[in-house]
Amino acid sequence: MTQKAIKIGIVGGTGYTGVELLRLLAQHPASELKVITSRKEAGMAVAEMFPNLRGRVALKFTEPSAGALAACDLVFFATPNGVAMGEARALFEAGVRVIDIAADFRIKDVALWEQWYGMKHACPDLVAQAIYGLPEVNRARIKDARIVANPGCYPTAVQLGFLPLVEAGIVDLDHLIADAKSGVSGAGRKAEVQTLLAEASDNFKAYGVPGHRHLPEITQGLAQLAGKPVRVVFTPHLTPMIRGIHATLYARLTTEADLQALYEKRYAKEPFVDVMPAGSHPDTRSVRGANTCRIAVHRPQGGDIVVVLSVIDNLVKGAAGQAVQNMNIMFGLPETTGLEQVALLP
Amino acid sequence: MTQKAIKIGIVGGTGYTGVELLRLLAQHPASELKVITSRKEAGMAVAEMFPNLRGRVALKFTEPSAGALAACDLVFFATPNGVAMGEARALFEAGVRVIDIAADFRIKDVALWEQWYGMKHACPDLVAQAIYGLPEVNRARIKDARIVANPGCYPTAVQLGFLPLVEAGIVDLDHLIADAKSGVSGAGRKAEVQTLLAEASDNFKAYGVPGHRHLPEITQGLAQLAGKPVRVVFTPHLTPMIRGIHATLYARLTTEADLQALYEKRYAKEPFVDVMPAGSHPDTRSVRGANTCRIAVHRPQGGDIVVVLSVIDNLVKGAAGQAVQNMNIMFGLPETTGLEQVALLP
Amino acid sequence: MTQKAIKIGIVGGTGYTGVELLRLLAQHPASELKVITSRKEAGMAVAEMFPNLRGRVALKFTEPSAGALAACDLVFFATPNGVAMGEARALFEAGVRVIDIAADFRIKDVALWEQWYGMKHACPDLVAQAIYGLPEVNRARIKDARIVANPGCYPTAVQLGFLPLVEAGIVDLDHLIADAKSGVSGAGRKAEVQTLLAEASDNFKAYGVPGHRHLPEITQGLAQLAGKPVRVVFTPHLTPMIRGIHATLYARLTTEADLQALYEKRYAKEPFVDVMPAGSHPDTRSVRGANTCRIAVHRPQGGDIVVVLSVIDNLVKGAAGQAVQNMNIMFGLPETTGLEQVALLP
Amino acid sequence: MTQKAIKIGIVGGTGYTGVELLRLLAQHPASELKVITSRKEAGMAVAEMFPNLRGRVALKFTEPSAGALAACDLVFFATPNGVAMGEARALFEAGVRVIDIAADFRIKDVALWEQWYGMKHACPDLVAQAIYGLPEVNRARIKDARIVANPGCYPTAVQLGFLPLVEAGIVDLDHLIADAKSGVSGAGRKAEVQTLLAEASDNFKAYGVPGHRHLPEITQGLAQLAGKPVRVVFTPHLTPMIRGIHATLYARLTTEADLQALYEKRYAKEPFVDVMPAGSHPDTRSVRGANTCRIAVHRPQGGDIVVVLSVIDNLVKGAAGQAVQNMNIMFGLPETTGLEQVALLP
Repeated sequence: MTQKAIKIGIVGGTGYTGVELLRLLAQHPASELKVITSRKEAGMAVAEMFPNLRGRVALKFTEPSAGALAACDLVFFATPNGVAMGEARALFEAGVRVIDIAADFRIKDVALWEQWYGMKHACPDLVAQAIYGLPEVNRARIKDARIVANPGCYPTAVQLGFLPLVEAGIVDLDHLIADAKSGVSGAGRKAEVQTLLAEASDNFKAYGVPGHRHLPEITQGLAQLAGKPVRVVFTPHLTPMIRGIHATLYARLTTEADLQALYEKRYAKEPFVDVMPAGSHPDTRSVRGANTCRIAVHRPQGGDIVVVLSVIDNLVKGAAGQAVQNMNIMFGLPETTGLEQVALLP
Repeated sequence: MTQKAIKIGIVGGTGYTGVELLRLLAQHPASELKVITSRKEAGMAVAEMFPNLRGRVALKFTEPSAGALAACDLVFFATPNGVAMGEARALFEAGVRVIDIAADFRIKDVALWEQWYGMKHACPDLVAQAIYGLPEVNRARIKDARIVANPGCYPTAVQLGFLPLVEAGIVDLDHLIADAKSGVSGAGRKAEVQTLLAEASDNFKAYGVPGHRHLPEITQGLAQLAGKPVRVVFTPHLTPMIRGIHATLYARLTTEADLQALYEKRYAKEPFVDVMPAGSHPDTRSVRGANTCRIAVHRPQGGDIVVVLSVIDNLVKGAAGQAVQNMNIMFGLPETTGLEQVALLP
Repeated sequence: MTQKAIKIGIVGGTGYTGVELLRLLAQHPASELKVITSRKEAGMAVAEMFPNLRGRVALKFTEPSAGALAACDLVFFATPNGVAMGEARALFEAGVRVIDIAADFRIKDVALWEQWYGMKHACPDLVAQAIYGLPEVNRARIKDARIVANPGCYPTAVQLGFLPLVEAGIVDLDHLIADAKSGVSGAGRKAEVQTLLAEASDNFKAYGVPGHRHLPEITQGLAQLAGKPVRVVFTPHLTPMIRGIHATLYARLTTEADLQALYEKRYAKEPFVDVMPAGSHPDTRSVRGANTCRIAVHRPQGGDIVVVLSVIDNLVKGAAGQAVQNMNIMFGLPETTGLEQVALLP
Repeated sequence: MTQKAIKIGIVGGTGYTGVELLRLLAQHPASELKVITSRKEAGMAVAEMFPNLRGRVALKFTEPSAGALAACDLVFFATPNGVAMGEARALFEAGVRVIDIAADFRIKDVALWEQWYGMKHACPDLVAQAIYGLPEVNRARIKDARIVANPGCYPTAVQLGFLPLVEAGIVDLDHLIADAKSGVSGAGRKAEVQTLLAEASDNFKAYGVPGHRHLPEITQGLAQLAGKPVRVVFTPHLTPMIRGIHATLYARLTTEADLQALYEKRYAKEPFVDVMPAGSHPDTRSVRGANTCRIAVHRPQGGDIVVVLSVIDNLVKGAAGQAVQNMNIMFGLPETTGLEQVALLP
């Protein structure tokens, strides 16, 4: 390979998004991880925290250092919400490109963001410059982006599932329903009682039904596709598995259409969206570890309600994989570079 | 105890509904298990197949025998669909009361039943006599029933969840949506690849989206409550846990109402339906092993779509527990007799 | 029932041992829960924290109060290690009997206890008075005990498994091996990363191989049975399930014996120890929710190594169930009172 | 790459070993899958059965055909035991090299094989020619092998764990103990009740304690390393996870040694055996999807019993991955070619 390797920095990286990003970058042929920072774990070898990386990642976590990051071509933020907005300006001004895998740059309406995330935004001007990193919608603008807001996991599955219907303008936009189920890794690598195995295993529950932070992100994305406001009822659920999101989407048809053809045509050239044959039911495990969104479209009993089934791995297409996809686009690499892992089944 | 014990026979009983029925009857103070038949397992001790019953159930499975069953007061069919209809007439004529935990007597429209179940019905006249065993709706008629059609697991969770809305006539009955998630025991104790742990664990998927046998049962029940036809989109999913159903129900409000009060009032006297405080999210594990349906009602973002969360243990309130509840009603016992197990959490 | 109900207090009770104790007491016919204290959760309804207890436990957690506890007949400590020893003396002096489900009174050698538990013992004199609550060994002494040290989960499974061999004096006591596997609830209801579902599910690992706190408890118990020192290699493992311990025990035979007969005879009158037929393999699920220890004994290939398989539910026979069994003995009730739940299978 | 791609045939391939082999070959840069046969599934697209392979494997299963297989350089048997022995001779005579991932060629003592596998061996002369494909022991002989007997999953984990001790001659060879725990995929993709999620989840049990087919394979391998007979007690257990084997090994030291140094030195040059730092406890998930065996060695309490912890992914280093490793050796490729996947964690 003749191209020079992309010099990469990671801020954070001690959570699930971080270890997944490390897994993907360790197998990426055109990038080189230069630095990974963690205030809390500085000095610890990455492979000590994540033994799957023994022999594959030699770095240690280091204290955050503006200098080391400023020498990179690209910095990923794999941090809690609110961190990237505080550190992005210095990198931005140093000419370093940024992909924030958290939520700081996703919502264009800063007041709305502040309401849902419960904090003051540190750099509203950079929000305006950030590009929402859903390649299937924004590929051209991602190419030259200096800051990419990597989409949330639920928003990725829900938007890709509704997209063809909304773009085609054939459904009732005031009553979209997204019934979504997530594996527990979506809650992050945080010490909490409710996601203990003894709590979350052999159990199923909804949460956040009155309101979830991913709702405004979904609504913003679909409204942009529709060119007008939309209303979505979004019901997230916790399902006892590690990885995977299954979004079951409901929309009422207002105009007749060949739905299977619509979906197949819209995604024909997308390397990471797989429209399954009519009548299919995608498994989340069919994308475990892979950067794929698998979709099936149904119209039960020939009625006027469309049911779309959309699955992703929340840590890959829903986080670290999509981030690498965005990196590939930003640096002119083939979009699938380093992202051809086959899903692990069983 | 002064009442004479109810003499019980079980036909089948080698599946999950069977073992659960045996667990409950072993702790029931007013019944006595006289005979359990299984052509395939005749001669095997029940406790050899189900070691949790060691020391608690001394019977062996026996060859089906009309005589032994005819000497019982009540016979449960814990058999595959299509068995009870072939054997019920003889018992009926012998004056033995019957509870069929399978589907043979659930659908009043025999032609519709035959279409969904793919077989000719053996005794349409007895279907007409059978009472649908959902006590919260049919308690008075169950009391004197000679044949009770015990409801399906999904239909129990879905009907109890929609019931107050449909009875009150305040939602759009043409666009009800039931997004339901079941543990794998719902598929039965059958050797099948798709429900192996290595297939179904760490995985989530929808199935039967084009049509599932529980749909006509749900539709029949809700239409009866509404007094007119209803249309339901029913999407079942398989979730990687053993027991539990979580039904997430969506309906569009056509008339304003205090939903929390409506639910609390409707179920105030029901011993096995628990309406949770506003804002709650019931866990399936909170009913694991218990004959309870727990319900929470939401109205996200103050919009016109009601979201109802309804959970049961598919093997208890969704099968064997509800069957024992029906038995208690039929034989004049307090309805909660033998059904006061506290759910196992964690 | 003519006997007056035992007045019960619980200190702690917000962990898994606590909720399990509450589940059992809610179904116990001769006890009455008077008070449950938790400094941290004072004011919260018990059933709000544990929704399986809705409608079954009406109490709220209260601030610890010597007076309320001193009015009880029996106080259970369902607390972290180190709490009971600080509060037991006042109760002891008030004539209240105590069952400590934690470890404060288990080890007679106080210096050894201090070494393994990393704290100074607050009341060595009460340790001397405490009775180790393994009924199959100490039933007679438990009857009049004022303080019962309820055994640990691993020590229960391991001691009951080795007991007949050690009592009979027919194995090499210097090389006993206990390879034990526990469900994750054994780690308690504590916010920790390593027991998150996303960490502990679909994973298996050993832990504490260099040394685990249950080792001195096991060694003390077996040495007492043997009448001389023993050496045990104890290897605990974490297995991805909620409840259950499976101890696989290895001992080298030094004297020939009919092992099956030895075990059956030793446990013939024990209501909660079930010796399975020769050739059996007990499932942990066969005791899920039940106060039973199931044991099978093997001698592979006719060699000189005995393999004993011993399973319990760590929260029942390994904690709360055994505590209720001890309570029954202490208060002259039939030992099985309130402990006849059938294990939940599947 | 200048080398001509290895032309590959697969017989069978509808099981878990098959799909894993397909996953690895789809990412292998120097092989080309020419044909995959399955009598039962002939005509079905591979990617229809295994949707993780959509877009990655275009082949359909075909009827077995001697001609198509004979045109390959290498044929893998991913079949039930007893199939390869019936078809290997024709391939052998046609000059096609064979790797049998099943057990037909593993045991040199054909009478012993027939006793454990319950069938007559079809080609004892080829057994004599087959090389046991454990590269860490037999690398040089595998290079020129015409038939490779790929090791079983348990035997791989157990032999690699005991190997340094046995080669060094420092443990009691008459009392080796292997307490092994396997995920459920080890039972294969077969419709069976006992491996249903509803049976095997939230459960732990031993099986085959009186005798398991992998015992003679383990014994043969260790005896060869020792140069004299060995006796092993082998206790397999089923643990509720999909992939992974954790072998906990016990041996009594007869000669003092620096165990950590012994293991590190023995495996220093092995690309797929990772000796962890002293005091470690390897997780099975740290090798999920990877061709690695991770080992830690302990000596609890400074006693004379060594405890070795050895983990593999049963479908990779325990089956398909080791088969590809053997292929690489046989065809002169770097041994790690196509096997550098990082384990999926979480």
